[in-house]
Amino acid sequence: MGAGSTKYGKLKESVVELAVNAARDAIKSAKLEPKDVQYGFISNVFGIADNQVHLAPVIMSNLGIPHVPGLTIESACGSGSIAFREAYANVAAGFYDAVLAVGVEKVTHTGTGRSTTLFSYCSDFLYEGGSGASFPGLFASIARAYLTRYKATEEDLAMVAVKNHEHGILNPKAHVQKRITVDDVIKSPVVASPLKFLDCCPFSDGASAVILCSEEFAKKRAADYIEVIGSGRGASPAAVQGREDPTTIPSTRAAAQQAYKQANLTPKDIDFAEVHDCFTIAEMIDMEDLGFFEKGMAAMAVREGLTRLNQGEVTINPSGGLKSKGHPIGATGIGQVVETYEQLLGRAGQRQVKDAEIGMTHNFGATGASCAVHIFRRV
Amino acid sequence: MGAGSTKYGKLKESVVELAVNAARDAIKSAKLEPKDVQYGFISNVFGIADNQVHLAPVIMSNLGIPHVPGLTIESACGSGSIAFREAYANVAAGFYDAVLAVGVEKVTHTGTGRSTTLFSYCSDFLYEGGSGASFPGLFASIARAYLTRYKATEEDLAMVAVKNHEHGILNPKAHVQKRITVDDVIKSPVVASPLKFLDCCPFSDGASAVILCSEEFAKKRAADYIEVIGSGRGASPAAVQGREDPTTIPSTRAAAQQAYKQANLTPKDIDFAEVHDCFTIAEMIDMEDLGFFEKGMAAMAVREGLTRLNQGEVTINPSGGLKSKGHPIGATGIGQVVETYEQLLGRAGQRQVKDAEIGMTHNFGATGASCAVHIFRRV
Repeated sequence: MGAGSTKYGKLKESVVELAVNAARDAIKSAKLEPKDVQYGFISNVFGIADNQVHLAPVIMSNLGIPHVPGLTIESACGSGSIAFREAYANVAAGFYDAVLAVGVEKVTHTGTGRSTTLFSYCSDFLYEGGSGASFPGLFASIARAYLTRYKATEEDLAMVAVKNHEHGILNPKAHVQKRITVDDVIKSPVVASPLKFLDCCPFSDGASAVILCSEEFAKKRAADYIEVIGSGRGASPAAVQGREDPTTIPSTRAAAQQAYKQANLTPKDIDFAEVHDCFTIAEMIDMEDLGFFEKGMAAMAVREGLTRLNQGEVTINPSGGLKSKGHPIGATGIGQVVETYEQLLGRAGQRQVKDAEIGMTHNFGATGASCAVHIFRRV
Repeated sequence: MGAGSTKYGKLKESVVELAVNAARDAIKSAKLEPKDVQYGFISNVFGIADNQVHLAPVIMSNLGIPHVPGLTIESACGSGSIAFREAYANVAAGFYDAVLAVGVEKVTHTGTGRSTTLFSYCSDFLYEGGSGASFPGLFASIARAYLTRYKATEEDLAMVAVKNHEHGILNPKAHVQKRITVDDVIKSPVVASPLKFLDCCPFSDGASAVILCSEEFAKKRAADYIEVIGSGRGASPAAVQGREDPTTIPSTRAAAQQAYKQANLTPKDIDFAEVHDCFTIAEMIDMEDLGFFEKGMAAMAVREGLTRLNQGEVTINPSGGLKSKGHPIGATGIGQVVETYEQLLGRAGQRQVKDAEIGMTHNFGATGASCAVHIFRRV
C-alpha cells in the first residue's frame, strides 16, 4: 500500500494533472511501477468544471498504462471514501491484487458563486438547492436545531474551527494554514446564521491517491503498509427535511456500526479519526454519531479540548480536516486515508498522533445522504 | 433478477423520475419490493444537465428506501455496462444478495449543440474535444481509415443503419421507429464525411434498470432469471491518436477475451449480441473485435445480411441498437442487459431471436477508451 497527495488549495494544474501527480506519488510510495496497477477507481464530482469527465482512461493514459481499466465514482463530497470502499471490495473479493484509488477535484477557477451553484446540485435539488437552500444554509438549519436543543453555543462551534486550524498549521499540504481565535470566528462575516465564514471549509482543488493491495501482494512486495479492518456504508434521506432528527446523521451511524462490527472494535479503541467537518457543526454531530461522545455532549468535549492533538482519548482531524486542510470534494475521502496511512506509519511529523495504532476515516456526501466509514490498523 | 426500462427518446420526465420509473419496473419484474434492494449502482454521466448529481440517495429516497446506500458510476457512454459489472462483482463476492443497477440520462432538453459539447468532455479533451474533434469527427476519422484499408463502402455502413432501424421498428421502446433505405442514409446530410446524419445514433433521454441477485437468492424467490457467465473489462489509449491502429478498439478485444474465457465460450456460441453502435462504423468494428468476423470482413457480412434478425449465426442489435433504440448514454449499457433478459426469457415479441440461449452485451465509452463485455445464459 502507498499514498500520495498534492497540496490542497487554489491550484493551477488541470484536473488530469492533479490526479496524475497524486497517483505517481502513491505508486512511488508503494515502491511499485505504474505497470503494477491493475485497475483504477477515480473519485470525482465536477470534472466537467475543467472540461473533462471519463477521467479513468485519460489518467491511465497519462500514467503510461492506457490498457488498465478504471471508472469514476461519484457520491458528492463522499465520493472519495465510497470509491475507496469499492476499491477495497474489489481487492477483498480477489478480483485484483493491486489497484489505484485516486480522488481529484478542480473547481476554484470557476469562482465562489459558480462553485456554490455546482455544489448545490449534490443536494436533493428539487427540495433544497433549487429552492435556494445551498449547503451553508442547510448546515445552518442543522446548527440552529443543535444549538437550540443542546447546551452548545456559537463559541463551541468556533472552537472546532480553532482546533482544526491548529492542526492544519502542522500540515504542509493544508489549504488554510492560519492560526485563528474564537473571536476571529465569531467576528467573521455571517454566511448563514449561526454559521460564520470561519465555520465553513474552503473550496479547494487537489488530489489524493492510495494503492490498495491484497495482503499477500503487500507482503511479497515488502513495502510499508497498513491494514483495512472495517468498512461500512450508510445512507440517509436525501433531503434534510425527510429526516426525523436533523441533529444526527443516520448514514454515519449505519456506516460506523458496520465498520466497528467488522473490525470488532468500539469507539474507545480509535486513536484518531479524520471526520467530515465541511462546517463546524458537522464535526460536532460526527463526534456523537461515531460514538466518541454521548448525544449532546460534543460541545463540552470541544470546549475542554478533548479532541485536540494528543490531548484526549481521540484526536479528531489531525490533518486539519476539511476546515483547514481543505475540501477538494472528490479527493477528500481518499485524502483522509492518506493522512491515516502517514499517521499509522509514524510519518506525520509535527502533527503525529502518539502511539497511533487504530485510525478511522469518516466522509459523507451532501448533508450526509451518503456516507462511508473505514477503520485501519498499524501492521 | 428483473429488468425494466422507460421508453427511450425525447422525454419530459426529470432525470430522477426516469431512473425511479425504470427501477420500479425492474423491482416489479423481479417480483420483489423496494425494501429487498440492498445497494444501488447508478450509471449516469450528465445528471448536472438536469441539476442533479449525487443521484443514489435521491433515487433511493424516491423509491421509499432512503436508508439503502448507493453510488454513481461514470465512464462516459460505457457507464452502464461498467456499473453493471461493479454490481455483478459485489454480488459475486458475496457482499450483497440483491442489488439495483439503474442507468439514466437526460440531455435532449439542452439541445443538440449543448449536448454535443457536453459529450465532447468524454473524449481526451486536451487533444480531441478541445480542438474541435467531437465524436462525429473522431468516428469519421476511424471510418475513413476503415474504408481506405478494407473492401468496404459508405453503402456498407448505411446497411448497418438500415438493419438496426428494421429491428428498432419491432421494439416499442425504441427512440427512432422508422424504416430507412441505403439511399436515405447516403442522401442524408453529411455530418463528418464519410458519416452522414443517418449513420449517427440520436441523443436520447431514458432509463433502464436491472436487479442482480445471488443465485441462491434468485432460486429462493422463484422469479425468472438469467445467468451472468462472463464479464470482462478493457481500456484503450484515451485519445484515438494514441492508438496504433484506429480500425480496431483494444478495450473491446481485451474485455471480450476475458468474458469468453470466464464463460468458456467462443464467438460461435453467441446467439445474439447487443453491441455499441453509436455510429455505423462502430458496429462494423465491434463485429470484428468481438470475434464474429475476421478483420476486414464485417462489411461483407453486413452486405449479405448475416447479422439481421434470425438471418445468420449471430443477430446483432435485435433491440435496434443505439442507432434506432436510442442512446441515453448512462442508460445504454444497462438497457442492453434489459434486452438480453427479455430475449433469453423469450419475451422479446416480434424481435425475438429464435432459440436464444446465449446473449452478449458490449458497451464502450467515448471512442472505446473504456469497455465492458458481458455474456449471459438462459437458465
